[in-house]
Amino acid sequence: MRAKTNVALCAFITTTLLSPLAPTYAQQLANEQELKAQQTTSSSPKNIIMVIADGMGPVYPVLYRNFKDDPQTNVVEKTVFDRLLVGSSSTYPHKMSGYVTDSAASATALATGVKTYNGAIGVDINKSPLLTVLEYAKIQGKRTGLVSTSQIVHASPASYIAKNESRRNYNEIADDFFDNRAEEKLIADVIIGGGTRYFKRDDRDLVKEFTDSGYLYIDSYEQLETLNTGSQTNVLSLLADIALPSALDSEIDSRLLTMGKVAVAQLENEKHGFVLIIEASQVDWAGHSNDIAYAMGEMDDLAKTMRFFEEYANQTQDTLVVLTADHNTGGVSIGRDGEYKWQGKWLKNLKQSPKAIATAIETDDLEKAEVEHLLGFDLSSDEFKSLIKADDEKGIYQALKSLLDLKTHTGWTTGGHTGVDVPVYAIGPGSDKFSGFQDNTDIGKELFHLLNDKKD
Amino acid sequence: MRAKTNVALCAFITTTLLSPLAPTYAQQLANEQELKAQQTTSSSPKNIIMVIADGMGPVYPVLYRNFKDDPQTNVVEKTVFDRLLVGSSSTYPHKMSGYVTDSAASATALATGVKTYNGAIGVDINKSPLLTVLEYAKIQGKRTGLVSTSQIVHASPASYIAKNESRRNYNEIADDFFDNRAEEKLIADVIIGGGTRYFKRDDRDLVKEFTDSGYLYIDSYEQLETLNTGSQTNVLSLLADIALPSALDSEIDSRLLTMGKVAVAQLENEKHGFVLIIEASQVDWAGHSNDIAYAMGEMDDLAKTMRFFEEYANQTQDTLVVLTADHNTGGVSIGRDGEYKWQGKWLKNLKQSPKAIATAIETDDLEKAEVEHLLGFDLSSDEFKSLIKADDEKGIYQALKSLLDLKTHTGWTTGGHTGVDVPVYAIGPGSDKFSGFQDNTDIGKELFHLLNDKKD
Repeated sequence: MRAKTNVALCAFITTTLLSPLAPTYAQQLANEQELKAQQTTSSSPKNIIMVIADGMGPVYPVLYRNFKDDPQTNVVEKTVFDRLLVGSSSTYPHKMSGYVTDSAASATALATGVKTYNGAIGVDINKSPLLTVLEYAKIQGKRTGLVSTSQIVHASPASYIAKNESRRNYNEIADDFFDNRAEEKLIADVIIGGGTRYFKRDDRDLVKEFTDSGYLYIDSYEQLETLNTGSQTNVLSLLADIALPSALDSEIDSRLLTMGKVAVAQLENEKHGFVLIIEASQVDWAGHSNDIAYAMGEMDDLAKTMRFFEEYANQTQDTLVVLTADHNTGGVSIGRDGEYKWQGKWLKNLKQSPKAIATAIETDDLEKAEVEHLLGFDLSSDEFKSLIKADDEKGIYQALKSLLDLKTHTGWTTGGHTGVDVPVYAIGPGSDKFSGFQDNTDIGKELFHLLNDKKD
Repeated sequence: MRAKTNVALCAFITTTLLSPLAPTYAQQLANEQELKAQQTTSSSPKNIIMVIADGMGPVYPVLYRNFKDDPQTNVVEKTVFDRLLVGSSSTYPHKMSGYVTDSAASATALATGVKTYNGAIGVDINKSPLLTVLEYAKIQGKRTGLVSTSQIVHASPASYIAKNESRRNYNEIADDFFDNRAEEKLIADVIIGGGTRYFKRDDRDLVKEFTDSGYLYIDSYEQLETLNTGSQTNVLSLLADIALPSALDSEIDSRLLTMGKVAVAQLENEKHGFVLIIEASQVDWAGHSNDIAYAMGEMDDLAKTMRFFEEYANQTQDTLVVLTADHNTGGVSIGRDGEYKWQGKWLKNLKQSPKAIATAIETDDLEKAEVEHLLGFDLSSDEFKSLIKADDEKGIYQALKSLLDLKTHTGWTTGGHTGVDVPVYAIGPGSDKFSGFQDNTDIGKELFHLLNDKKD
């Protein structure tokens, strides 16, 4: 079953279902006068950039700090994450799904302020559609964007725009990107990520529908990077058939930063400001794979993106940037097996991701020196044997990850998610609202509040 | 080598070695006039209660929240930890010891504001003694206390009072409890914990030396609980030969809470206030043992203690309470092996700790029903067989922990420490100083600052 919806229905349902803390579209219409008269506080941002680092539990930013540490100094250098940390968030789904959330339930909580079951996209436990902060921003006249390093129909970005009982219904979710409307307007003005196959299908060509509606369609970084800034162009950019390549294998450096910069440039506007939802999707996938090198590559792209947003918040003074994770993935630890050690130096010079290196070893029957070149460090002959003795690419990848885990002293407990609280980072007007402990639904509710206190 | 010291030497050395952020005794004496004239801000507490939950990385408070969750409600009830969370702290030792700290280096950082090597007690990387916040408080005329559920000479409490190149020199550390002085006064007015064997030795009877110096010596909870409150009695209370029994095996409920209440009652004073350092030592030991039931028992005693301190801070309005951990232990995770689950119900009705139950199984050759009674849940016959097939107590304990891990879906990566940042909790005047990200040395430095801004 697909959860059919439009904003009118959505508003009706959310009026009855949403907690009083999450202002709904219907309430907004009814109380418009009152809202206009509301005191505009100094804590009301004009622009909101909400960053979700999928799977980034509390260990990843510390791993990243150690990974980037300059061994020549006496201190471990602080990162952008350390500068922006304000609090922590619980992530558990609706209790019908237990204590460990998936991305769909947690992204729906962040997007709507409502707990739901694992797998739900923008719908509550009764599969009724919920109003999201992105829809609410659009209704308020803001420009809106959605950026992701996964297919853009994946759970986290999807939860801000689609309504579906299951995260697996990618085609229906893609349809929602065009069909779901806020006061007849398309929800997202700028959409950048992967997932061409879900938009250009035999049964429907959503790319054509977007371009017919005035969107510029872009399928390469070259085009994306040469786009006129400040032109307020509506953009649909699909840069891969499914997900983008990992940061370590990307054709361009810092793909998340690139997409984030382009999105901000196209969303910026004098009058109403913008809301951008941007997901660093593949920290989660690195965690699922128990792949520490992959994780550090994704964290590095995220850190560069956050440094840009930090600077943007400092420069504009009216932009709130919030970063959190939907959950933790992998049960990763800094140290393992009783040893009080972690060493990031083995991850610093990889030419490609471990998975791509494993493929190269299998496909091209590489010599030891060639593998060493790709890894950026020398292998003992036993280490080299441990890699090539595996029967297939999967086995080689597993052996390579084990080698890196042992050399770095990285531990893992699961290929799935874990239930620890996740860090919350914020800068800009309203950032104080995210201090200390909160639930993921509180973050969604707070964004509704801040959108209600809008300046324009 | 023992790091010989007295406070005069200590002051001399710390003047040259301590960061300018950590005011030293010598500076304090030299600048007394200036300090007296310093502005007393509303954020200066009269009393400081510093709680160290040894080994309590960010997962333990979330495990505890889930463990205490009322399954009859739709939400996961918040705990005292959630109410008090303000920030997060890095814990790495001096870089000569890598990225993963031990308790000695981290407690020394918390106590003195200075990074040192793993194993160091109150001394820097040159093995020179450092001034601690407890010594500084005593110099300022405050009453001072040290409470621990381990032997009181264990790394964390020891770092506040002793100076030794190695945490393992328990007898020398015990000597420092009497021999180290601040302006000729004993450093701690109230000392409560385990460790009789280190104080009553063939070569020295420190208990006699303390009682000769006017301390009341107490070796039972009965005596401790009937002590006159508000009498400002100096107390040395040693309640076990080495460490206290675990919370689950304790002869009294909530031994940490009991000791904390007694300490506060004896330390309270109108004029100068007090500083109490209190350690929930055995969260760490539960982590080292990978024993989730033991961990929840310790967290429960800690939570009750924190609720008492929270109420005390609210009532007195001039008490700062800070809780943090020295590091994480065990690499514990909520969920494991790809399953998105955690179930605390298996831990709710244990009559004793898993270790004590294992001992009982081995010693008393228990029947299935007897084991079920001790565990508080029924066992399948395969589960019972998995327990009794082990050859010895150690094997039975291991099997029992594995059973509880599988039933609760708890994962572990190590029997040692891990390098993740730890949560920071605070309430009372000055609590805002601990918001967001900080290093463990920053916590020590901030306590020096707050002691400098003293109200009296």
